[in-house]
Amino acid sequence: MFMHNKRLQYTVRVGDTNPGLANLLLEQFGGPQGELAAAMRYFTQAVAEEDPGRKDMLYDIATEELSHLEVIGSLIAMLNKGAKGQLAEGVEKEAAMYRSLQGAGNDSHVTQVLYGGGPALVNSGGQLWNAGYIDSIGEPTADLRSNIAAEARAKIVYERLINLTDDPGVKEALGFLMTREIAHQKSFEKALYSIESNFPPGKLAGDPRFTNVYFNMSQGDGDMRGSWNEGDQWQFVEDVSKMMAADGGSGLATANMSPDELKAVEQMAMRTQSDPAMNPTTGAELGAANNSVVGKDGRGTMH
Amino acid sequence: MFMHNKRLQYTVRVGDTNPGLANLLLEQFGGPQGELAAAMRYFTQAVAEEDPGRKDMLYDIATEELSHLEVIGSLIAMLNKGAKGQLAEGVEKEAAMYRSLQGAGNDSHVTQVLYGGGPALVNSGGQLWNAGYIDSIGEPTADLRSNIAAEARAKIVYERLINLTDDPGVKEALGFLMTREIAHQKSFEKALYSIESNFPPGKLAGDPRFTNVYFNMSQGDGDMRGSWNEGDQWQFVEDVSKMMAADGGSGLATANMSPDELKAVEQMAMRTQSDPAMNPTTGAELGAANNSVVGKDGRGTMH
Amino acid sequence: MFMHNKRLQYTVRVGDTNPGLANLLLEQFGGPQGELAAAMRYFTQAVAEEDPGRKDMLYDIATEELSHLEVIGSLIAMLNKGAKGQLAEGVEKEAAMYRSLQGAGNDSHVTQVLYGGGPALVNSGGQLWNAGYIDSIGEPTADLRSNIAAEARAKIVYERLINLTDDPGVKEALGFLMTREIAHQKSFEKALYSIESNFPPGKLAGDPRFTNVYFNMSQGDGDMRGSWNEGDQWQFVEDVSKMMAADGGSGLATANMSPDELKAVEQMAMRTQSDPAMNPTTGAELGAANNSVVGKDGRGTMH
Amino acid sequence: MFMHNKRLQYTVRVGDTNPGLANLLLEQFGGPQGELAAAMRYFTQAVAEEDPGRKDMLYDIATEELSHLEVIGSLIAMLNKGAKGQLAEGVEKEAAMYRSLQGAGNDSHVTQVLYGGGPALVNSGGQLWNAGYIDSIGEPTADLRSNIAAEARAKIVYERLINLTDDPGVKEALGFLMTREIAHQKSFEKALYSIESNFPPGKLAGDPRFTNVYFNMSQGDGDMRGSWNEGDQWQFVEDVSKMMAADGGSGLATANMSPDELKAVEQMAMRTQSDPAMNPTTGAELGAANNSVVGKDGRGTMH
Amino acid sequence: MFMHNKRLQYTVRVGDTNPGLANLLLEQFGGPQGELAAAMRYFTQAVAEEDPGRKDMLYDIATEELSHLEVIGSLIAMLNKGAKGQLAEGVEKEAAMYRSLQGAGNDSHVTQVLYGGGPALVNSGGQLWNAGYIDSIGEPTADLRSNIAAEARAKIVYERLINLTDDPGVKEALGFLMTREIAHQKSFEKALYSIESNFPPGKLAGDPRFTNVYFNMSQGDGDMRGSWNEGDQWQFVEDVSKMMAADGGSGLATANMSPDELKAVEQMAMRTQSDPAMNPTTGAELGAANNSVVGKDGRGTMH
Amino acid sequence: MFMHNKRLQYTVRVGDTNPGLANLLLEQFGGPQGELAAAMRYFTQAVAEEDPGRKDMLYDIATEELSHLEVIGSLIAMLNKGAKGQLAEGVEKEAAMYRSLQGAGNDSHVTQVLYGGGPALVNSGGQLWNAGYIDSIGEPTADLRSNIAAEARAKIVYERLINLTDDPGVKEALGFLMTREIAHQKSFEKALYSIESNFPPGKLAGDPRFTNVYFNMSQGDGDMRGSWNEGDQWQFVEDVSKMMAADGGSGLATANMSPDELKAVEQMAMRTQSDPAMNPTTGAELGAANNSVVGKDGRGTMH
Repeated sequence: MFMHNKRLQYTVRVGDTNPGLANLLLEQFGGPQGELAAAMRYFTQAVAEEDPGRKDMLYDIATEELSHLEVIGSLIAMLNKGAKGQLAEGVEKEAAMYRSLQGAGNDSHVTQVLYGGGPALVNSGGQLWNAGYIDSIGEPTADLRSNIAAEARAKIVYERLINLTDDPGVKEALGFLMTREIAHQKSFEKALYSIESNFPPGKLAGDPRFTNVYFNMSQGDGDMRGSWNEGDQWQFVEDVSKMMAADGGSGLATANMSPDELKAVEQMAMRTQSDPAMNPTTGAELGAANNSVVGKDGRGTMH
Repeated sequence: MFMHNKRLQYTVRVGDTNPGLANLLLEQFGGPQGELAAAMRYFTQAVAEEDPGRKDMLYDIATEELSHLEVIGSLIAMLNKGAKGQLAEGVEKEAAMYRSLQGAGNDSHVTQVLYGGGPALVNSGGQLWNAGYIDSIGEPTADLRSNIAAEARAKIVYERLINLTDDPGVKEALGFLMTREIAHQKSFEKALYSIESNFPPGKLAGDPRFTNVYFNMSQGDGDMRGSWNEGDQWQFVEDVSKMMAADGGSGLATANMSPDELKAVEQMAMRTQSDPAMNPTTGAELGAANNSVVGKDGRGTMH
Repeated sequence: MFMHNKRLQYTVRVGDTNPGLANLLLEQFGGPQGELAAAMRYFTQAVAEEDPGRKDMLYDIATEELSHLEVIGSLIAMLNKGAKGQLAEGVEKEAAMYRSLQGAGNDSHVTQVLYGGGPALVNSGGQLWNAGYIDSIGEPTADLRSNIAAEARAKIVYERLINLTDDPGVKEALGFLMTREIAHQKSFEKALYSIESNFPPGKLAGDPRFTNVYFNMSQGDGDMRGSWNEGDQWQFVEDVSKMMAADGGSGLATANMSPDELKAVEQMAMRTQSDPAMNPTTGAELGAANNSVVGKDGRGTMH
Repeated sequence: MFMHNKRLQYTVRVGDTNPGLANLLLEQFGGPQGELAAAMRYFTQAVAEEDPGRKDMLYDIATEELSHLEVIGSLIAMLNKGAKGQLAEGVEKEAAMYRSLQGAGNDSHVTQVLYGGGPALVNSGGQLWNAGYIDSIGEPTADLRSNIAAEARAKIVYERLINLTDDPGVKEALGFLMTREIAHQKSFEKALYSIESNFPPGKLAGDPRFTNVYFNMSQGDGDMRGSWNEGDQWQFVEDVSKMMAADGGSGLATANMSPDELKAVEQMAMRTQSDPAMNPTTGAELGAANNSVVGKDGRGTMH
Repeated sequence: MFMHNKRLQYTVRVGDTNPGLANLLLEQFGGPQGELAAAMRYFTQAVAEEDPGRKDMLYDIATEELSHLEVIGSLIAMLNKGAKGQLAEGVEKEAAMYRSLQGAGNDSHVTQVLYGGGPALVNSGGQLWNAGYIDSIGEPTADLRSNIAAEARAKIVYERLINLTDDPGVKEALGFLMTREIAHQKSFEKALYSIESNFPPGKLAGDPRFTNVYFNMSQGDGDMRGSWNEGDQWQFVEDVSKMMAADGGSGLATANMSPDELKAVEQMAMRTQSDPAMNPTTGAELGAANNSVVGKDGRGTMH
Repeated sequence: MFMHNKRLQYTVRVGDTNPGLANLLLEQFGGPQGELAAAMRYFTQAVAEEDPGRKDMLYDIATEELSHLEVIGSLIAMLNKGAKGQLAEGVEKEAAMYRSLQGAGNDSHVTQVLYGGGPALVNSGGQLWNAGYIDSIGEPTADLRSNIAAEARAKIVYERLINLTDDPGVKEALGFLMTREIAHQKSFEKALYSIESNFPPGKLAGDPRFTNVYFNMSQGDGDMRGSWNEGDQWQFVEDVSKMMAADGGSGLATANMSPDELKAVEQMAMRTQSDPAMNPTTGAELGAANNSVVGKDGRGTMH
């Protein structure tokens, strides 16, 4: 069960209000690398987890991410506080309000007009949060890797936001949130490597014919070798004819069909055949009757 | 530049057609862990990559994933081939066709009615593929971790699909695709650890006050200790009062406002105050006038 | 700040596992009327709220909804627990597993193959949760009405789910969750009517010419009168000519344009004019050259 | 059946064209609180409604909302009319056109480049309209409350837009549209309270043990009492131990499993155990080998 | 302005109720090729259209499509009418209701549990309608072609639905709706070809070096020639070296950068270099320490 | 199988970097008319195609569109290259970086903060690419028309982008891409008209009673006649009573119900009846107790 205390996990001390900055911070409120995505990622994993140690850890971190969501939401609410009252009460002249809304840059007009300055679960471009941001699949050797990557991404977005503000209070709170992503990544790494055999993830072993093969499918100037495709661990294939088909077969797709199925498919094929022997007049030719494709009088040309 | 050859990377030998199984395989065609997501993940990273080694590797693997998209799409097309012709040509009686469509289970009705049996970029539940499945952020120390995790997830989904079919040709092709995810994960791991200093990701160091702290925010029966929150690397905090606020401040949120801003906010607060001294009659009470909330005659009760 | 205790707000006692039922319950986990939508609705309002009484109430209820999310998620995890292990470990024969997956009905195949049986933030049809489900706009006289309506909807969905299961433990837990929606609705009603003047919502009064008008825009058999369009409060307009335009004007749309703008628009209009004096041959006519639209030999007809 | 007359329900008299303002108005064309959402909300309810009075009212208001969609769409088309021609005909110099596009502020570039200045079904931030904006569930005691709330929200967004323009014609048309939302709310209120017993919504009564309970789940400074949690109607619970579990049970989640299910789950748990007794070396430690987490030379620090 | 009459454009005579069929019909109510998409496609074009003939035609057809939406919605409401009452009133035993809900096949559980049997704006797989289904861009030579294509698609989906039911009343109504798509396509074709010069669409002519070139980018067995790539109108290029780069240039991407920009990019490249000279130990190798990738004892293998 | 060569299909020569322009170009990278949509449209059709000529053509063009995706992505990457390094390395002062980010206009802040300047699969407004942009349905007489329309739309968006830049290298590359859309449209037209009987699309003929009817459903000033509704091919209906119902029936919707179904529906209707004989007090009236709807002192009025 969750409980709440109205004190924040980190004190929020915003300097001047600034709706444009508020809007950038939405990235970590309702964006793909933001705190709701983090909290829900770990919470949904925790609910289904069988391992008691990971279950406890996932609940710990999910709860902290909810508390971070509150911190970043409070930063946004404070930065928007001035604009919010003015639009709600209509205290400025319309034209002034319009100019200030546009001047705030980015999409802060959405935040003001649609959400009234409240922290909405959208990213900084107004894209609604959706659960596709969460990539848990219920297998710990995969989910822990996903969590490690998610913490890495969130760390970077905080880093960029820190690079964009010189309000010391905002910077300090963002620094706390960024640092916690580092700590969480460390925990998830420990939990992953505490699974004795975690690679390859899951249960089935790979097919030994293809586990160590590297296909050089992008060729030409710029080809490079390194530990990712070179050395004892790799069999490097650059002969395209050995790639298709890699199994040595025909590279064709086939299926068995019943006589009825076959007959219906053939009927469809005949009905919809594009006859290569025809050279039909087309709609495009009708439409081009009075002009030349390659640019004539009435037509524009690039300059 | 991309080129194409009509031979597949792996020969597709489907036994009997089976639209229900085709639909499950959509998971890896247009689902979040599927081949389009993989191809676009690596392709978009490749385009912007500065490092020549990674750029080459990302193009290699992106191109292979496109080739896998073709293999899984061909499996789906073959499994749907029979049903497709019959619906298009209306060769069965309506009632029989309706029953066979429903009998195929899951959402294969969408695949048939809307997409005509073609491989559509949806997951096995009909959810449209969207670019939110891709989590690249343009920083290699994060993106490579995301790639590692993505390969791990894709491997697991293939494993589950293999567990669900006994058609040897389908199983074999899925086994090839699953194995390649293992090989790709290995390449991304090598590339990540070839970055000399890759943790913490990005450029800014964490705040040393909070990098090694573990907050025990989920308490009660089930608390566990392990390498993820115990040992020399960790400072374990379980006193809630030390969590809020972690900075030792008030845990409140504040911002500076201009007098005009302040006045507008106060005006809004006054206009919309919920007065705790009132005990108003409410709409719910109007609506409950003729019944009791706690279950009376006309009302249903759970049995 | 949020805290968590590993005891649930309501004890979950599931009888036999049942992935099909688990899937229906997803409606209240990741569906539009579900607990995440409720929790985030109230939480985001709480963060921006200026009124101390409402702020406290919103945090109370948001926190309870998160605890409900945990209860419903635990119901789902328990109902899926058997299927999850079997698919992960591949302990059944493929064909049996495939049949049992399809036999569970609805979209439980997505839950198993993609999410591994974990509670995912999707509705019972596999639609990803998105923040468009939340309709807060930052004005309490509107948001409280939205909250009242949201609680009413959630109550109904729980009622329907209760009607669909005879597992006593599931029924009891759903009954608890349903009842709490009633209690929350009551709180929001009290808070709304504690705002002294809450109708019309917001600050601007309506235009008195149109506030009490009812336009009878759907006419013909089935026209009805009732308190919603009849009585002293209403001016009933059924003469269509008084509706367009209701302001007594021309009902046309006009704008001022600069000479340059006007010239460009005219040029575009001339370039793209569909000349009513032409009767052109069309692509459809080309395509119909060898058949009659009204059904001839080769063509199918409905039977 | 719907019919149409080319005269608008309200005359649209736009002053100067203004693509930036056009874009803000998209909020009520293709936004969540806009006229399409309203029209489709009432129309879909009308189709399924059994009560003849409500059915008539829902068709009346749905039809009016469609007419409003046309009014707001015409405002947008007029405001965009100048820019549209200039971009289509390429009559300005490229650099001037680029500057004017960016200078319009907000997302008007999308409206111009992608939609050619036409009114698109997106909100003012470019988010595509989706049917998740409609929350009808087919039970009138819930749907009428949803309609009341929707009208309240739409009224507020119009109010904000009115506060942002000083074009008298735009202001007047927006004022008409805003006022009609007030009138519609009144009709829906009448229809709701004409249902004799409308609270709690639906058929099942609540569980009397929990209908009147208020859980104080957010505690600490800021706790408040008011009619929403105080008085004869409420039992106020602040002892956390009485919340978990509210039924007096263990607060645990359990399910029956067959021996086969149990065995598979145990096997999965063992295979994926994170062993708390291990202190493994992790990928993060590999990656940090050449740097210190707490900020050394090569690393950036916040300044 | 829109008006409405409660008589339908086509009489709906449903035989027995059938929620499974209702659900399939959702494809044309809230699906991508359905009537809402059609109505909104033409309506939004009509609002912005400058040409009086097309404007009138677009309003005519948009209005008819709204009337079709009402017909298809009424079919769905009738087919769901029985199930709706039973779930709302809980008149069947739970287990029977659960079985009948699952037995209806496809996603009708969503329609019942979430929408209460009302016609919801989702496709037959539960995917919410979204405005991305509309592809208007505000240029008639493109939009009319889009409309022609949209009518063709809608015609096909109706054809498939007709093939799936033997209820004569449903079949007849679907036949009417299908036929009207044919008529609408004919109107749009006439309007397109009434634009004197409609190909290429828009204003700018193509670059004559590339207008008539066909690049044979997919090579190998299966290469075919036909009027689409053969004949006087085409220059057929199959030499890959003439494709990259088609302009005869280097095929590289370059940009000018200021010295500061260049320095920052170089710094980023150096910080994140994957050093090809290293062969680092990776996380995967840590995780594989106790097992072999190529399948050993504890590991599953495919059978 | 796909292969790749690191040379582009068209050489990219960007002048100065320009993140604002980069963002506009996203429209053709991850937007609805962009290159990914094109590539996936043709690729998915190719996989399922039975006709060998069309299959080859679809693979050819799909592969070229992927190569275009690479060209447009490279343009974006080059235009963003400067900003990317500066944000990643934090080399400018925060305030300067914030101003430059906002000054770039449109949504380039999302591209920088969230995606680090890489080409993301979003449109120029930050809307994520989704597979709803693809409208293939698996019937060639419809799909080829959809392809023709898609090429027309893409051509127009390129034309608009060309109108917005004066960088010669960008203009030239966009001109190449635009021209190729013209060539592709020509190929699809040839393939469509090579199907001997392609109108009406699909197999079923229309109902001859309704194939040639034009319903004048939008009436009043502005009615026009032209080849789309006039002439021998058309029966023009303007008498509304002949439209509803067009079949000459009652225009009502009916269905058969079993006695149990009927009883449940009646019970639901009675429970939820809005009684037209009541004039209830409503929540709105409670809320308006202390103010007048038509604007009194405390209330704002429009000025």
